[in-house]
Amino acid sequence: MNGSGTAPAARTPAPRAAYRRLSVEERRTQLIAAALTLFAHRAPEEVSLDDVAAAARVSRPLVYRYFPGGKPQLYEAALRSAADDLQLCFAEPRTGPLSERLAAVLDRYLGFVDEHDAGFSALLQGGSVAETSRTGAIVDGVRRAAAGHILTHLAVGSPGPRLRMMVRTWIAAVEAASLIWLDEDKLPPAAEVRDWLVDHFVALLVATAGSDGQAAAVARAALDLEAADGTVGRLARRVAEVVTDSGHLLELPAAEGDVPGAE
Amino acid sequence: MNGSGTAPAARTPAPRAAYRRLSVEERRTQLIAAALTLFAHRAPEEVSLDDVAAAARVSRPLVYRYFPGGKPQLYEAALRSAADDLQLCFAEPRTGPLSERLAAVLDRYLGFVDEHDAGFSALLQGGSVAETSRTGAIVDGVRRAAAGHILTHLAVGSPGPRLRMMVRTWIAAVEAASLIWLDEDKLPPAAEVRDWLVDHFVALLVATAGSDGQAAAVARAALDLEAADGTVGRLARRVAEVVTDSGHLLELPAAEGDVPGAE
Repeated sequence: MNGSGTAPAARTPAPRAAYRRLSVEERRTQLIAAALTLFAHRAPEEVSLDDVAAAARVSRPLVYRYFPGGKPQLYEAALRSAADDLQLCFAEPRTGPLSERLAAVLDRYLGFVDEHDAGFSALLQGGSVAETSRTGAIVDGVRRAAAGHILTHLAVGSPGPRLRMMVRTWIAAVEAASLIWLDEDKLPPAAEVRDWLVDHFVALLVATAGSDGQAAAVARAALDLEAADGTVGRLARRVAEVVTDSGHLLELPAAEGDVPGAE
Repeated sequence: MNGSGTAPAARTPAPRAAYRRLSVEERRTQLIAAALTLFAHRAPEEVSLDDVAAAARVSRPLVYRYFPGGKPQLYEAALRSAADDLQLCFAEPRTGPLSERLAAVLDRYLGFVDEHDAGFSALLQGGSVAETSRTGAIVDGVRRAAAGHILTHLAVGSPGPRLRMMVRTWIAAVEAASLIWLDEDKLPPAAEVRDWLVDHFVALLVATAGSDGQAAAVARAALDLEAADGTVGRLARRVAEVVTDSGHLLELPAAEGDVPGAE
């Protein structure tokens, strides 16, 4: 992505200590990486350009040469770089049970949350001094990309409002769960959070199917591909046990359909 | 709440135009009400103290006398007043089916969202110039209060991490759905959004019950109180129809329990 493959000269191995040999793009990348590491452990307001310069073992003026706008510009560049990384997590082949695809993406997503830690919290919890309408737009772009990927996996040409609302609210729930997870010292283990978020999605899809024809078609197709010994099979059997005493909900006392106003 | 009932003199009807007769508390309330009306229709950065003064038909210096900190102080006071109002929406008797209690609270909540409109969006979407760590704390306080109320209705003495995460992620989903609803010109109608959010809660509770004993006990007790001709009965019958072809998920091919690693 850096275009370094085009110039044969770039292949010459550089001596380890020769910082001056870094290309403009490499230096920029190095400064952003240093900033991201710092933002992962401290609130944005507690990270100074001096800290970034020290972490990257360069001078403060050099940081300013790359980011003349100072910390806001560096923060935005770091956020954009992290957002690009995060969006790479979303790519997943459209084969196999939906629950397994979701689980694979959530594994990568929670890995990202784990790595970016304090920076992730500060950004999404709001009230950060580093937050602007531009950083908000970057975050919204990631959410839109995530929603787009999920809708692609649901294989609906033009998703209706109910299905879109379902996907977007689930993404909000995933974000909330991630913040709670960070807040509770990364407990329960990421794999449990992942499984619960997959269960959440499946439950939400099936519940939405109860009032939306498009969601019903998607749910039927998705359940068809799930295996009895997979996540959704386990969920189905456990839920069947929980609702086993709730047979009264399945039978209307007098009529066989819904009777509006019969309450 | 203004303590106006204690002094008999306060009962004397005031002439309509005598603005000077307002008590300090009444004037403050009036200015906050004017601010909230303005914030409901425009972004915080587009509302000036002059606008508030004009809307309340008072002078700009008078607004400053009540809010010497200027717009940030007025914004925070308006937010705190709105937050107090919102928390009143959460109170609901602990009787009847859980779905009906949730629906009643959601009706009032969506009424609040409808009324505060642009102000609600600006506050929760972040990146607003009016946002500070103090406004963030007010919003978090509301979320905590909402979670506390719901856990009380679930009637668990000391809710475990899974149940708490479930409630907090559902609240995040409700917020996301509200923002989408405002963004889509309040469509579908509030009653449909309410019903879907109730379905979402029930589905999430039942799915969480699949992996958490405490949630299972709560779900069983809650489903027991639900009626066949109520929201949850309707949901159950519709979902039963959707999953009717997914019987393969309920039967493990070889063993009768879960066989880890059998995939």
